[in-house]
Amino acid sequence: MHLFITKVTLCGWVQYLRQDLFIILRDFSGLTQILIPQEESPNDLKAVLCDLTVESVIMVRGTVTRRPAGQENKNMLTGEIEVLAENVEIFNVSKKLPFEIKDFVKKSESLRMQHRYLDLRSSQMQKNMRLRSELVMKMREYLCNVHGFVDVETPTLFKRTPGGAKEFIVPSREPGRFYSLPQSPQQFKQLLMVAGIDRYFQMARCYRDEGSKPDRQPEFTQVDIEMSFVDQSGIMSLVEGLLQYSWPAEKGPIQVPFQTMTYEEAMRGYGVDKPDTRFNMKIEFLRSALAQPGGSVQAICVPSGAVRATSALFCPQELSLVLVRADGSLKSPLKKLLSVSATDDLLQTTGAKPGDLVLMAAVTICCLSSLSLFCLCSSQRPLLGNLRLQCAELLNSRGVTLRDPSVFHFLWVVDFPLFLPKDDEPEQLESAHHPFTAPLPEDTPLLYTEPHKVRGQHYDLVLNGCEIGGGSIRIHKASEQLHVLKNILREDPSLLSHLLEALDSGAPPHGGIALGLDRLVSIMVGALSIRDVIAFPKSFRGHDLMSQAPDFVSEEDLNCYHISVKWPPEQEGTGTAGK
Amino acid sequence: MHLFITKVTLCGWVQYLRQDLFIILRDFSGLTQILIPQEESPNDLKAVLCDLTVESVIMVRGTVTRRPAGQENKNMLTGEIEVLAENVEIFNVSKKLPFEIKDFVKKSESLRMQHRYLDLRSSQMQKNMRLRSELVMKMREYLCNVHGFVDVETPTLFKRTPGGAKEFIVPSREPGRFYSLPQSPQQFKQLLMVAGIDRYFQMARCYRDEGSKPDRQPEFTQVDIEMSFVDQSGIMSLVEGLLQYSWPAEKGPIQVPFQTMTYEEAMRGYGVDKPDTRFNMKIEFLRSALAQPGGSVQAICVPSGAVRATSALFCPQELSLVLVRADGSLKSPLKKLLSVSATDDLLQTTGAKPGDLVLMAAVTICCLSSLSLFCLCSSQRPLLGNLRLQCAELLNSRGVTLRDPSVFHFLWVVDFPLFLPKDDEPEQLESAHHPFTAPLPEDTPLLYTEPHKVRGQHYDLVLNGCEIGGGSIRIHKASEQLHVLKNILREDPSLLSHLLEALDSGAPPHGGIALGLDRLVSIMVGALSIRDVIAFPKSFRGHDLMSQAPDFVSEEDLNCYHISVKWPPEQEGTGTAGK
Repeated sequence: MHLFITKVTLCGWVQYLRQDLFIILRDFSGLTQILIPQEESPNDLKAVLCDLTVESVIMVRGTVTRRPAGQENKNMLTGEIEVLAENVEIFNVSKKLPFEIKDFVKKSESLRMQHRYLDLRSSQMQKNMRLRSELVMKMREYLCNVHGFVDVETPTLFKRTPGGAKEFIVPSREPGRFYSLPQSPQQFKQLLMVAGIDRYFQMARCYRDEGSKPDRQPEFTQVDIEMSFVDQSGIMSLVEGLLQYSWPAEKGPIQVPFQTMTYEEAMRGYGVDKPDTRFNMKIEFLRSALAQPGGSVQAICVPSGAVRATSALFCPQELSLVLVRADGSLKSPLKKLLSVSATDDLLQTTGAKPGDLVLMAAVTICCLSSLSLFCLCSSQRPLLGNLRLQCAELLNSRGVTLRDPSVFHFLWVVDFPLFLPKDDEPEQLESAHHPFTAPLPEDTPLLYTEPHKVRGQHYDLVLNGCEIGGGSIRIHKASEQLHVLKNILREDPSLLSHLLEALDSGAPPHGGIALGLDRLVSIMVGALSIRDVIAFPKSFRGHDLMSQAPDFVSEEDLNCYHISVKWPPEQEGTGTAGK
Repeated sequence: MHLFITKVTLCGWVQYLRQDLFIILRDFSGLTQILIPQEESPNDLKAVLCDLTVESVIMVRGTVTRRPAGQENKNMLTGEIEVLAENVEIFNVSKKLPFEIKDFVKKSESLRMQHRYLDLRSSQMQKNMRLRSELVMKMREYLCNVHGFVDVETPTLFKRTPGGAKEFIVPSREPGRFYSLPQSPQQFKQLLMVAGIDRYFQMARCYRDEGSKPDRQPEFTQVDIEMSFVDQSGIMSLVEGLLQYSWPAEKGPIQVPFQTMTYEEAMRGYGVDKPDTRFNMKIEFLRSALAQPGGSVQAICVPSGAVRATSALFCPQELSLVLVRADGSLKSPLKKLLSVSATDDLLQTTGAKPGDLVLMAAVTICCLSSLSLFCLCSSQRPLLGNLRLQCAELLNSRGVTLRDPSVFHFLWVVDFPLFLPKDDEPEQLESAHHPFTAPLPEDTPLLYTEPHKVRGQHYDLVLNGCEIGGGSIRIHKASEQLHVLKNILREDPSLLSHLLEALDSGAPPHGGIALGLDRLVSIMVGALSIRDVIAFPKSFRGHDLMSQAPDFVSEEDLNCYHISVKWPPEQEGTGTAGK
């Protein structure tokens, strides 16, 4: 290495002051050590620098020098050099802050949110914000530059959609009339296909008023894509290419095509429509486990579960635990019911070994119709699916790593049912996703005879057991869309008359997808919450803790919108303004 | 040229059907002629194709052939070839449409808006949407890839800002509490600078509730930029580079740096703070035009105006017209008041030639203070400035082109006053732009003594006489910001306590700009309205004519927001739901 001397100008924040000898200056790119000159100088540089408070903002001019031998810091990118200060300008002196800007300093989330402009200075949040920006830029390059997509902005002040109970409303200056903030640009993206914008995308701001569901934000962003003259596999391979192209190099390459599984396979093997396929522990169906004909037994084998997980497991009473002892014998309340052949079947099908734990769910009612049995089988699956994830967590906390934290496992789930029975009115069907999803071509005739059997051309993208996107091929014929709305869903089609009319005006076949950007980035950076990849998120109650939004508005300001507040009884008479 | 035979598959819309011989098929890239086979075929291709309605969507497989000699169409990109159809799939048959998709078909704007999905099929709207998308992509490349900016999304559900009368409100599920849709991310962009995101940008959705101002949209998009450790010239040259980089090649290159003019120069020379500098006709100050001392005469010379513009000009009574006759003599009601030397001065200063028209504004009150005289002079300027534009329009309509329609003239206007007297309360100052703008360094002491004299570090970007952007260097010291809010503007600083606290927590010097994307694109493509560069714009009354938004919401749906509609007297008792 050769000697170097360079004059530099650095702007940044004072990270530390050390014994009146050094300042560590921080900027977006990292830390640099500033050497405080110890000799007297006309501008009293030493005094000025030593008087600085942490997090003050300064500009330093000085000379880059190699640190004396032995004083290098290998943990610092600039650890081999320091800058001898010759001149300083103080832009702003920081007062004492509510918390220090150091990665190891723990602070409550509410304190972080109240002072988000400080929290964002942490190296982790800086990394998250910058990685998100770079990811989005690469996605745009892929869609616009590589594949000719058109970035179209769609309105967020729109008409309320049928059943849009989760849509925020915005009063207009016309009495009684409100805009709605849409949950997604679904209608617009389809209208754009009718409009001949054959490849549309948008990083779309979406809104959902769900009160206070944890880890949901009232506004969020989706990568919104729609194409004409495309089929399901076309959208799927576009998205695979998109993610492969934009995936950060530091996170390692991802393999395409992604694994694909039908909804039925996912529910049968994992008890959930967004299986975490980073580990096995699938649900097995045991044909001969119980003596009764017409019964159903499903089971999961948890490797090493007998020793590590049993005690802490919250096991619902519908399930039975079977422990495999070291000698291969079983310990279970069900043991007496299990014949020798059933025991063999259990061990063989689940592959259970000594030390393993088997979770069993049994339905043993003989006189059920096959449909009811199907439903009962299905209802066991979510229980087992939940327990599967719970076991993986438990094993993880006890040092058995089933899931490599650096692995990203993408999975397509396809062939969803198009309609599901309504919870409160099972004779009536509702859309599994939304009323615009097209049926599988081979199931289309069933729309008019047995709609509950129809599978949709819907596809979900799952990453490490989280749903990060979903889309479908849409219905492009007005008559079919009208049949679904009116005869199957029993909704008032007049609310969607503009869409129906558009479909009748030369609509191409089309389909698309929406990826949840916040969720995707949070999994990518290993954040515990999507709040860690959003610059200014709301609290789980929907509040901005920094500015105190939402806030009271004076009655005068409400007048032009022709609305007034209906105060709940206990708050009546306390006035509205300035509260 | 050589013979070629190629099989192709084309998807698109039926643009025309001609005499059962041809179909013109349209897709996003243009038109192609499909030859209908005239011989009988097993799949009855001729009958199928001839039965199609205009705007139906089909897929055609066929063979590309050269058109017979003499039948080429030079006006069509694919005019040398045609495709002999061999196979067709009909995706959707179009019903009869409310208007034809042909550029020459005139239709009312409200009809276009009601059927926007058809209107967007026109070649001009396709061009506008695609050019806008490409422009935005290039801007992102410049900011992100060339200059390391970080694309950060900021919330649109926020707290009401002080004096935010133009902010839409969004009721929350907590009684009396409302979010606000901000007019711009101003506070967030400054907070991001405090947060150490030293280069921020965002294509930001902004909201403004202005009732029904023509050519304004309730939601619009701005290119929002903020930088730390930057001065005015730094932002200006960044924006010049940005526009030069992203400017569409087809519109010709643009020259940088842009012309710069002070606010004072703009008002003096053009009577407006956003002068159209594509043509001259500046306002001239005539020192000796009238005999009285202390008077003020300002004038504009309109070339050829005497013959072409006088009759149609709407001239306010404060102004006088002076026509220069062919022999050089003047025709004017003021003629008797003008001395020989004043006449000479008039002709010389304005450069008026025979056939020209001179517009004169005179103030001749002797006993005014110099401040009042200044104000009176200033009040003449907007009159003359308006008339200047009116004359240019008039001359244009009479064949005298002052402004080349293919020219883009950018101009920076700088050194704006920081504060202006309030219209209704002239002793009280208000911000000329917003309360966060920093004063010019040399004017900073005046903040504490004569604030009305302070000029701000604000800059407007003007294109062809339209303001397309504005920005400033911001105040970064909490004490200065507090002084401005509390002592000069007399606003309640507690509403901005989070910003003041942020400035006290190590805020770097920073500044930025916001460009109006809709306006910029509309000038670029020569659109008459910004509605022509927005996919789904609102009408000038703020309505979506396609879906009928805003719409009525049932009282039940309002309950969870604890609001009720206050119906104006004449509508009382007519009920709310389903109206």
